[in-house]
Amino acid sequence: MNFDFLFNPKSVAVVGVSSDPTKLGSVVFTNMISAGYSGKLFPVNPKYTDIFKHKCYAKVSDIPEDVDVVCIVVPPKFVNDVLEDAGKKKVQGAVIITAGFGETGEEGKKLEEQILDTAAKYNIRILGPNCLGSMDTKNKVNLSFAATNAIEGNIAFLSQSGAFCTAMLDMSLDSNLGFSHLVSIGNKSDLNENDFVTEWLADDNVSVIGAYLEDVHSGHDLAKIYNESKTKKPLVIFKPGESEESQLAIASHTGSLAGSIEVFETAMQQSGITVAKDIDSMFNYLQGFAWSKLPKGKRVGLLTNAGGPGIIATDFIIKNNFELNVLSDDIQKQLKENLPENSNIHNPVDVIGDADSERYKSALEIMVQDENLDAIIVILTPQLVTEVEETAKIVINNFKVSDKPIIPVFLGGRYVSYALKRFYDNKVPAYKDISSAIETLAALYNYSAHLKNNEESRRSVKISNLLGKGKYRSEIQSLVTDSDKALDENLVAKLAEEVGIVIPKQKLTEHSEEAVAFAQDLYPVVIKAPTGAIVHKTDQKALYLNINSNYDLVESYIKLYSLVSLQSKHPKILVQEQLKADEEIFVGVKRDGSSKVYDSSEGGFGHLIAFGKGGIYTEVYKDIVYSLVPASIDEIFKKLKSTKVYKIIEGARGKDKLAEDKLLDTIESVQKLVLLYPEISSMDINPLMLTKDKAVSVDIKIFIKL
Amino acid sequence: MNFDFLFNPKSVAVVGVSSDPTKLGSVVFTNMISAGYSGKLFPVNPKYTDIFKHKCYAKVSDIPEDVDVVCIVVPPKFVNDVLEDAGKKKVQGAVIITAGFGETGEEGKKLEEQILDTAAKYNIRILGPNCLGSMDTKNKVNLSFAATNAIEGNIAFLSQSGAFCTAMLDMSLDSNLGFSHLVSIGNKSDLNENDFVTEWLADDNVSVIGAYLEDVHSGHDLAKIYNESKTKKPLVIFKPGESEESQLAIASHTGSLAGSIEVFETAMQQSGITVAKDIDSMFNYLQGFAWSKLPKGKRVGLLTNAGGPGIIATDFIIKNNFELNVLSDDIQKQLKENLPENSNIHNPVDVIGDADSERYKSALEIMVQDENLDAIIVILTPQLVTEVEETAKIVINNFKVSDKPIIPVFLGGRYVSYALKRFYDNKVPAYKDISSAIETLAALYNYSAHLKNNEESRRSVKISNLLGKGKYRSEIQSLVTDSDKALDENLVAKLAEEVGIVIPKQKLTEHSEEAVAFAQDLYPVVIKAPTGAIVHKTDQKALYLNINSNYDLVESYIKLYSLVSLQSKHPKILVQEQLKADEEIFVGVKRDGSSKVYDSSEGGFGHLIAFGKGGIYTEVYKDIVYSLVPASIDEIFKKLKSTKVYKIIEGARGKDKLAEDKLLDTIESVQKLVLLYPEISSMDINPLMLTKDKAVSVDIKIFIKL
Repeated sequence: MNFDFLFNPKSVAVVGVSSDPTKLGSVVFTNMISAGYSGKLFPVNPKYTDIFKHKCYAKVSDIPEDVDVVCIVVPPKFVNDVLEDAGKKKVQGAVIITAGFGETGEEGKKLEEQILDTAAKYNIRILGPNCLGSMDTKNKVNLSFAATNAIEGNIAFLSQSGAFCTAMLDMSLDSNLGFSHLVSIGNKSDLNENDFVTEWLADDNVSVIGAYLEDVHSGHDLAKIYNESKTKKPLVIFKPGESEESQLAIASHTGSLAGSIEVFETAMQQSGITVAKDIDSMFNYLQGFAWSKLPKGKRVGLLTNAGGPGIIATDFIIKNNFELNVLSDDIQKQLKENLPENSNIHNPVDVIGDADSERYKSALEIMVQDENLDAIIVILTPQLVTEVEETAKIVINNFKVSDKPIIPVFLGGRYVSYALKRFYDNKVPAYKDISSAIETLAALYNYSAHLKNNEESRRSVKISNLLGKGKYRSEIQSLVTDSDKALDENLVAKLAEEVGIVIPKQKLTEHSEEAVAFAQDLYPVVIKAPTGAIVHKTDQKALYLNINSNYDLVESYIKLYSLVSLQSKHPKILVQEQLKADEEIFVGVKRDGSSKVYDSSEGGFGHLIAFGKGGIYTEVYKDIVYSLVPASIDEIFKKLKSTKVYKIIEGARGKDKLAEDKLLDTIESVQKLVLLYPEISSMDINPLMLTKDKAVSVDIKIFIKL
Repeated sequence: MNFDFLFNPKSVAVVGVSSDPTKLGSVVFTNMISAGYSGKLFPVNPKYTDIFKHKCYAKVSDIPEDVDVVCIVVPPKFVNDVLEDAGKKKVQGAVIITAGFGETGEEGKKLEEQILDTAAKYNIRILGPNCLGSMDTKNKVNLSFAATNAIEGNIAFLSQSGAFCTAMLDMSLDSNLGFSHLVSIGNKSDLNENDFVTEWLADDNVSVIGAYLEDVHSGHDLAKIYNESKTKKPLVIFKPGESEESQLAIASHTGSLAGSIEVFETAMQQSGITVAKDIDSMFNYLQGFAWSKLPKGKRVGLLTNAGGPGIIATDFIIKNNFELNVLSDDIQKQLKENLPENSNIHNPVDVIGDADSERYKSALEIMVQDENLDAIIVILTPQLVTEVEETAKIVINNFKVSDKPIIPVFLGGRYVSYALKRFYDNKVPAYKDISSAIETLAALYNYSAHLKNNEESRRSVKISNLLGKGKYRSEIQSLVTDSDKALDENLVAKLAEEVGIVIPKQKLTEHSEEAVAFAQDLYPVVIKAPTGAIVHKTDQKALYLNINSNYDLVESYIKLYSLVSLQSKHPKILVQEQLKADEEIFVGVKRDGSSKVYDSSEGGFGHLIAFGKGGIYTEVYKDIVYSLVPASIDEIFKKLKSTKVYKIIEGARGKDKLAEDKLLDTIESVQKLVLLYPEISSMDINPLMLTKDKAVSVDIKIFIKL
């Protein structure tokens, strides 16, 4: 869609401007003026004939010229009338600053629906309601009541919280961080994050995108938009809501449901979207992406004038999965020649406390030549002879010409603050603390690694090949309703067979002779009542384990048969081979969104597949990893290796390696299954019995739902 | 000891002052002058007759008056001569700024030993070498080459890194944070952290103690000093060295070994010592302890002018184990009456974006009355009508009179910086980011909770009752050497019996008849070769499991007997009942320091007991918790409950509760054992078989070492 009406309108009407310059409407109007807006600007308010030296109109339809966008700052009950009137004027969009809609409860929701109806009628796109407004710095548009204009730059930022925008904006002033766009999406009744991300991915003026979200509009779409975009740009998202308590707070704040944090984080990680963990990290990551080169690898060099901070930085480097690389021989030799004797020429390179800026210069210029380093962190503590500002200049000069990121960390307060200012003026991301610097570098590295690994998207192709194409689709469709329903054992077995999930040898028998014949080559076996026959299997002795002989089998069979007979006219008994696992594994799936999640722009990320330690320790250790379906086998394998139980799978303490290939096949089959049948709302295999040559899914439960 | 020579000397000589004011010695000298030192100050340098308007002496012994302390800033090879000369003059202490000693390698170590010998000869206490020096702000002593004087205050801080001191000092200038003492302990060849902590715990002028340590001199002593002190003060320690890489960096920086992070963290937590995780958190914690009241409980109230930051704060509150408390009915009622309709009067209390300072005032003054709240966090985002500075004043006024901590978080950059300055000027700990505020509050709460729970120390009493008083002490002492040695099964069984550790029924037999007779009431049994008889039990079939009948027993016995006969003249076979655990538990002990760790001031924290999930998952899940010996049974139980496997112990999913009392008894017995025999260097019980009525230690290994 064309966003010119919002970001580059030729004419703007602000409804609700008053003669009091401190009122919201007036602030929006004067913000447009102070931003230097060069288009036509019309104040609207029936009480005035002119205002702030502009002719004032009673209503939008009184304006004699075309109006591209109208900004509405009137009490909620009048908003719809303004919109109706603006509709007649054929405005393309409305920025509704006014609060008091969906976020306030049922009545507000109705009011919001009403304005959406009006907007639809006149084909008007809506930003908000309940928002701070929108800025485009290049086009000098500030349709917001923010207290200041943003600095011009290449970061496009959107936020579901106006205050988050305001805080970022205030932080950006001292750090010289520039924005191309700053959009508060408020209740996102019409325009939402996906619209803006689509627009900004295509806008050459934008090089980094940031978003603060309290709920995700349509996760599957967001991931798809980002993954399928031809232009790759860093996208940083911060979404609170880890705790139940904050999810409640979100519900009362925006009226939206936050959704599971696992689905969100998995989707982000799989798509290469950076997740920020608080306001500071959002700010740091945007600044890092906007200003710094990306590290091509994990090998970090540390340059410091003090041992202690070098040690502290080392801990953070390792914690963030970087490597403190050994410097090349030649580089070490050069350092030795150029630094005083008691310097440390290994990594961290310690130019020691009496280092002046020249010494930093020698060391840094040598280190940037090292092909074994992908990034350099320069730590400075303000000691007696330290030349803080001169050293900053040296870092800046090297930052500009080097092809690897050089990140300064100047520890302290007063004596380093001017150096930081100088860094920011030169667009060098600089930090006062070690952890922020290294976490930011990690964000840059992860994005860079994702770019390398994911030159093409695997997701969309596979989905369309499989989606809804299962053999038993009609059977499933006849069963599915809008509440969760369990499939019976027969259907589960058929589905398992269709995709190649191995289940134990089993037979539904009517006589003990039949059972004995079947069990001959299988002992030990278990016998159980079929699904649905008796509710709680173990409670009522409807499950017999460890049957090792014909004698035992017949004895248990008779007991179980008589029990099942009580509830069934044609009693059947399930005989199943009993398997002994070297390890019990869990594989599960949960769908985020409805069964239509892959087709439409409804909410949800689709199916999330989970796997890891199963059996009685599933809940105890939660040693489970997640992938969004469909994930490539490489990705599944990488995730599996990150579980702790993988130590056992790969053969711990001299034991046999287990059949990890069979396990991966099963996970792949499960992915296939849920795409063949998107009606599957959840599915559990627990345990999957893994031995050195088999992966058998003993207990499979499948639920379907529309 | 008396620290007056360092913190309140009557006369000071600085050796190595030159006419160049930028040289280290000159800086120390002029720092003394600029600090306003009122005692006698003597420059020493044979090249000058007077310097900076002071008569200059060729050597310390030339000074015609008494000298309390000498500060030495001359090249390393001359330090010992200066000390010799100063010794004749009967100085009480020496601050050795000079570097180039133990930290540089073997030669430097020798030089350091030499100065220690000289110091011992003349009874001189040494600070350093390789340090920044020392400050006492109250007595106006600045015997350091720091670039500035510290602000006067009540925080005593020591650091093993001069640069860490410098960074803290620079940070403190802008935040108005005052120090009573600032000591750089350098190589701590003589005076170390324990000396200063002892001194500062007793000094009424000190209310908070902070320390940056790269290695801990004598952990057991440090814990003892802190636990047994009559005056309780917060002690905050930051010790890097989590990663192997940083431990290497520490070794090359200070020549010291860092020791296990588990021992350190356990000891700190058990003693109620606060652990900082980086420079910023150290600074924040010190500031918080110095300025804020302590929260009496976990119930936090949030006051905000924006929903988004309220949600973000909620996540951090929950993550830090605080509770977002429901406000009292009466408080809610008052808030409802005093705030606009669309405010949120639940917790977080949201006074919404158009809140001026008066609205903050109403809300805050109501909230501080709530007896259901232990602390209040006031969040402000700088929005259009926000009165940043006025709101700050309101928080300050409430902070001063309230008995609960009130912590402001003013989000942003430029517009909130003056408010922060105002907070600092009024000694209100204030933050620009949510996580720092809540983590600091958590540090204050944990200290306050520890004070409440630990009104008397349990540690020292018990140790002296048991230490070295085991029945088999002489036997152990005859075996112990300076390398790890395993005890044999007989001795292990005797030790287990002495303290009441339950082991399986077992018998060392010489004939299969004897074995059969013993096994009658025990089946299933296992048989094994005794310890030492054969090296790898399972490899050579020296272990037979699942023996269920006399026939099986005799058959296996014969095979094993013939194997053992190959290596022993009087072969014996161990018959042991085979136990089936409902859960396998690990209990282990490792000693930090030597067997004398409890008697002397040698390094080490003593025995660390570890327990948690055992069996094959011990290493996989590392579901292990730690306590320093001796820990009270309450503490052990609390720790046990924090393991994940405790879910199984307490009876997961409707299963029986296991014998946790028996498990606790075993852990208690193990603690007793290592105190009876401090020679035990490590000990492993894995697995301990836990059933619903038993806790049997199946495999016990004990190692001893001097």
